[in-house]
Amino acid sequence: MAYRAAVVGGSGYTGAELLRLLAAHPEIEVAHVTADSNAGAAVADLFPSLAAAYPSLQYVPLAPGDLAGLDVVFLALPHGQSQAVAGALVDTVGHVVDLGADFRLPRVDYEQWYGEQHTAPDLIDRFAFGLPELYRAEIGGARHVAAPGCYPTTASLALAPLLHDGLVESTGIVVDAASGVSGAGRGLKVTSLFSEVNENVAAYGLLTHRHTAEMEMTLGHVAGNPVQVLFTPHLVPMTRGILATCYARPAVGQLSTAELLGRYREFYDGEPFVVVTDGSPATKATLGSNTVHVTVRYDARTNTVLALGALDNLVKGASGQAIQCANLLLGLPEPTALPTTGLMP
Amino acid sequence: MAYRAAVVGGSGYTGAELLRLLAAHPEIEVAHVTADSNAGAAVADLFPSLAAAYPSLQYVPLAPGDLAGLDVVFLALPHGQSQAVAGALVDTVGHVVDLGADFRLPRVDYEQWYGEQHTAPDLIDRFAFGLPELYRAEIGGARHVAAPGCYPTTASLALAPLLHDGLVESTGIVVDAASGVSGAGRGLKVTSLFSEVNENVAAYGLLTHRHTAEMEMTLGHVAGNPVQVLFTPHLVPMTRGILATCYARPAVGQLSTAELLGRYREFYDGEPFVVVTDGSPATKATLGSNTVHVTVRYDARTNTVLALGALDNLVKGASGQAIQCANLLLGLPEPTALPTTGLMP
Amino acid sequence: MAYRAAVVGGSGYTGAELLRLLAAHPEIEVAHVTADSNAGAAVADLFPSLAAAYPSLQYVPLAPGDLAGLDVVFLALPHGQSQAVAGALVDTVGHVVDLGADFRLPRVDYEQWYGEQHTAPDLIDRFAFGLPELYRAEIGGARHVAAPGCYPTTASLALAPLLHDGLVESTGIVVDAASGVSGAGRGLKVTSLFSEVNENVAAYGLLTHRHTAEMEMTLGHVAGNPVQVLFTPHLVPMTRGILATCYARPAVGQLSTAELLGRYREFYDGEPFVVVTDGSPATKATLGSNTVHVTVRYDARTNTVLALGALDNLVKGASGQAIQCANLLLGLPEPTALPTTGLMP
Amino acid sequence: MAYRAAVVGGSGYTGAELLRLLAAHPEIEVAHVTADSNAGAAVADLFPSLAAAYPSLQYVPLAPGDLAGLDVVFLALPHGQSQAVAGALVDTVGHVVDLGADFRLPRVDYEQWYGEQHTAPDLIDRFAFGLPELYRAEIGGARHVAAPGCYPTTASLALAPLLHDGLVESTGIVVDAASGVSGAGRGLKVTSLFSEVNENVAAYGLLTHRHTAEMEMTLGHVAGNPVQVLFTPHLVPMTRGILATCYARPAVGQLSTAELLGRYREFYDGEPFVVVTDGSPATKATLGSNTVHVTVRYDARTNTVLALGALDNLVKGASGQAIQCANLLLGLPEPTALPTTGLMP
Repeated sequence: MAYRAAVVGGSGYTGAELLRLLAAHPEIEVAHVTADSNAGAAVADLFPSLAAAYPSLQYVPLAPGDLAGLDVVFLALPHGQSQAVAGALVDTVGHVVDLGADFRLPRVDYEQWYGEQHTAPDLIDRFAFGLPELYRAEIGGARHVAAPGCYPTTASLALAPLLHDGLVESTGIVVDAASGVSGAGRGLKVTSLFSEVNENVAAYGLLTHRHTAEMEMTLGHVAGNPVQVLFTPHLVPMTRGILATCYARPAVGQLSTAELLGRYREFYDGEPFVVVTDGSPATKATLGSNTVHVTVRYDARTNTVLALGALDNLVKGASGQAIQCANLLLGLPEPTALPTTGLMP
Repeated sequence: MAYRAAVVGGSGYTGAELLRLLAAHPEIEVAHVTADSNAGAAVADLFPSLAAAYPSLQYVPLAPGDLAGLDVVFLALPHGQSQAVAGALVDTVGHVVDLGADFRLPRVDYEQWYGEQHTAPDLIDRFAFGLPELYRAEIGGARHVAAPGCYPTTASLALAPLLHDGLVESTGIVVDAASGVSGAGRGLKVTSLFSEVNENVAAYGLLTHRHTAEMEMTLGHVAGNPVQVLFTPHLVPMTRGILATCYARPAVGQLSTAELLGRYREFYDGEPFVVVTDGSPATKATLGSNTVHVTVRYDARTNTVLALGALDNLVKGASGQAIQCANLLLGLPEPTALPTTGLMP
Repeated sequence: MAYRAAVVGGSGYTGAELLRLLAAHPEIEVAHVTADSNAGAAVADLFPSLAAAYPSLQYVPLAPGDLAGLDVVFLALPHGQSQAVAGALVDTVGHVVDLGADFRLPRVDYEQWYGEQHTAPDLIDRFAFGLPELYRAEIGGARHVAAPGCYPTTASLALAPLLHDGLVESTGIVVDAASGVSGAGRGLKVTSLFSEVNENVAAYGLLTHRHTAEMEMTLGHVAGNPVQVLFTPHLVPMTRGILATCYARPAVGQLSTAELLGRYREFYDGEPFVVVTDGSPATKATLGSNTVHVTVRYDARTNTVLALGALDNLVKGASGQAIQCANLLLGLPEPTALPTTGLMP
Repeated sequence: MAYRAAVVGGSGYTGAELLRLLAAHPEIEVAHVTADSNAGAAVADLFPSLAAAYPSLQYVPLAPGDLAGLDVVFLALPHGQSQAVAGALVDTVGHVVDLGADFRLPRVDYEQWYGEQHTAPDLIDRFAFGLPELYRAEIGGARHVAAPGCYPTTASLALAPLLHDGLVESTGIVVDAASGVSGAGRGLKVTSLFSEVNENVAAYGLLTHRHTAEMEMTLGHVAGNPVQVLFTPHLVPMTRGILATCYARPAVGQLSTAELLGRYREFYDGEPFVVVTDGSPATKATLGSNTVHVTVRYDARTNTVLALGALDNLVKGASGQAIQCANLLLGLPEPTALPTTGLMP
């Protein structure tokens, strides 16, 4: 294999998903996987799903010096921890792909929405925002990438053509989204227990979910002007998948569903991971894949535009997108090792 | 027992739920249960869950003449079939409680949203709309009741205080809702198969779901003026439960979440089946019960009001509400035989 | 109401289920509910499902002196904790119904299977084993009851007629059972997380599950001689429900399925909570109810008897059975306040 | 690509799974996909999960003449239909891989367990039994393959080392298995509806499930003498996955779990798709992969051997195994295009 990689934080769900996808990567070898609290354990014991591919790989404690010289380091750490590690890596490894929130937002937005000081603000500019469909040029010019959150990826790809073409107002946008539980990670919380989640739907983070800032940043980038979003996430009883149902007010007259679908198909023409569907996107169509499905509707009765997007939060919403970015950084074909077909049924 | 009842269409999910709830009713005895395609079968064979309570009850074919003289007849038929039956019942039985859509809407709205002619338009006025919390006076003055749909019950109870008090605009209202699969009934459809529903979330009926008309009628009744709603239903992988997340634009200034919660508590003061919660309502808190949970928020950042409601679509959204109405029609205490605690976990 | 009760350990799942069922009990009032780590919290906050029935009840710390004089005290504590509390209660309250494992087994069996010393062995004889269908006489003669575990209830009721009548060998019995996750309680464990349980089936506790001892005790009691059982429990992706599939070798010739079903119907004749079914029992038929469904088969090809039982682990397998026992202890009709119909769908 | 393939019956779940896996196959191109009732439809419309990989592929009606000259034809038809088609294919296409039951069993066993006459008995000998781990030599010497059923694959791989080495008796074997619902296919049945399956576990096909014959054949092949199995399948609320928990009586003394695990590791040494685990196998570890996990225990207390196996019924239990066989028939590396890592979580 051409390149050697590390997965830092490999005992969480996004870390394990990186290992699953990288097992099939013809050009990237996993040379190193860290997990502080699980150091010494075998990957195959924590994730028997990986036993056939990694029969003897073991977690080691994170020591940034051990990573020097690697071609790419994936950081799959809880929010806030990448800031403490990145400084030791940005000049000693080939590329850092951070899956956390630490280097996605401008400092001021980070500090406002996350309610805490950023401890490595000078590094933020070293990272491009890793949403290739909307920031491919920026990623091409960068050495490091901060992969976006799962909700912002979904909502931004669902709404981007509308804002890019100025078809909807930049205020009054509502993003109502539903997510599987794996987005909450493997940490122990009552709200992640099967008996609490099963047969239950509820909204959470009303008015204040942190991903709002990423959506506004990304859509503002596409629109060329500030955008305001009200975001309501819901937890639904499934493991993977995010569906975003988005509402916006037209900024122009004479819209139609057919015309909007045509614009979406043009906007995403040639994108290997975006499917524009006539029907209503289903998360299950994307299960285990790096594909996002989007559609759009114009409702003349209420003069509203409806845009929907579906993806797998652990693949296109996290680890798959991180590998998509790594492929770009390494000069490999962007789709390398990324499945496009969903596990259905 | 004081009263004798029939369940017409007792082999579907709402019919079986009527049987489950009526098994514990101290004043209503199930004397008759019909199911045309399953006539001759034992209730206990089609629904082993009912075996202990109805060890020998059998389905018979529907013959309206057999029902004459009964105190209350519940119609749990597929959409459109009550029109063909009601004429023979409205003057021969004590009370009809229809769980279908046939007598909920004015003729013109019915024909527009259901795309077909109403075959018994003269009977529509014989039925009150069976949402007791918002139409108790009308039910009290009526002989028959058309129980509302599951989505309109949820959304209307979530939004009613806002529209009653004129706190939000009557246009631009968005109702984004998620439902368990039992709402689609026991009929055979690919989209109801476990392997299709499980690990999947998708919207359906985009822009055109028929329950929109009921929501607009109910909220218009509460507001005293026409109301316009854009409604997007979603199917989520659970059996029971509906959550409605509703967005509206303030019609007045100076709103706050605390004040709105206070108004909700006043509006629903004394209602046995409405719980106003500070937290975000969860469908599971209502599982198997006739209770609806609602909350409300004001988002100053985007100047939007958010209202949420959760209930069990087969109880408060169908069979429980039908019994609540029957209790009113029969002069019984409204909460008789209706559980208020949810099956949790 | 005639009687005043306490629920000790009311913030776990069996405690909450006691509160749910007692909310509908016409003769027992919940006067007191304890939860050490959640003391001060409102029941309605920890379990919004109970908000309508207990709008103002609060958890208090356990102080045995506070319970003196109550008619019945339910102990819904983690394994091992009842031993520390029972001594202060057995002579000061009317009746203790313990839902834990502490007073079910003879001391020697407890210490062998639980791997620890019993700290209150003198009290064990003060408790009858609370499986009314098989120990009704013993319960009638006792002041206190130790309600059995969920698996032993299921397997014992499925197999009892066979062993009572000497139809199967007392060795070589296999109990292969599947349980929903609520049996593991509300405690935080990786193995109880939704993302781990969903879409997964696995056996656990291979060869050594502690409920084996209870099954052997109960079936030995029914048979009149020692019985040996190999028990394999499985975790399946559902919240509630246990299915036991049991295999035994005939001890007599000339068996047939029809004859065995007839014997089962005789054995359970008049039991309000046992349904002998011709078909294969389904856990969902019992959801939320105190009913157990059982059936039996004879396979001539392999000369094996197959017995199956299904119930709701939190009702007939725990809190419902505890109330059934309390009804017996208080001289109330045994089925008081115990639903027999399952929540289906 | 080197080889051209057809999928006959491509609109069912095993057909769609063949398409999913073949989309990543470097040497096999899907040239043709049939589906009689869905002829004319786009694959991407029936299975949006395949839209990105097959944007324009359409189902055509089956016309065996159209398949002449193809290198491999996969038959993913309902039971009984392959008999009518195979005659026209066995000499006109390179290889037939049948996923149905038609060519797995000797005629007499087929007719006994399936209760109908075999209409192409002369062809049965043209097909090797496609379980590579136990029949690799036979497959190597054959032109066509009948891939085994999902339950027999699981149970046979779990038990094979015991019978091969004569460690257990060949009678008295119990296979108690649990399956996800996808095994029942996309056909419309009440028992496959989400609302019936969810929160439910039940056994089915008591004493008479047809896969019993395949298990007895396969294990007899391994043992070198007839084997008798009592098989009880269960339906559990998940989409994919089978777990078999098997019980057998020792035929030799002095067994131990450690020794048995050692024998399993030897027996499966070098197999790319078999993982022998110390822990209890979980179906989820195999989700979407062609891997089977197995373990074994000896219980000295009851003198019983316990063997467990877990796999994905649509991959190793159907379409993946079919491709594994096709790889062998075509002389390709056996693991080509077959994932070994499970989708976890």
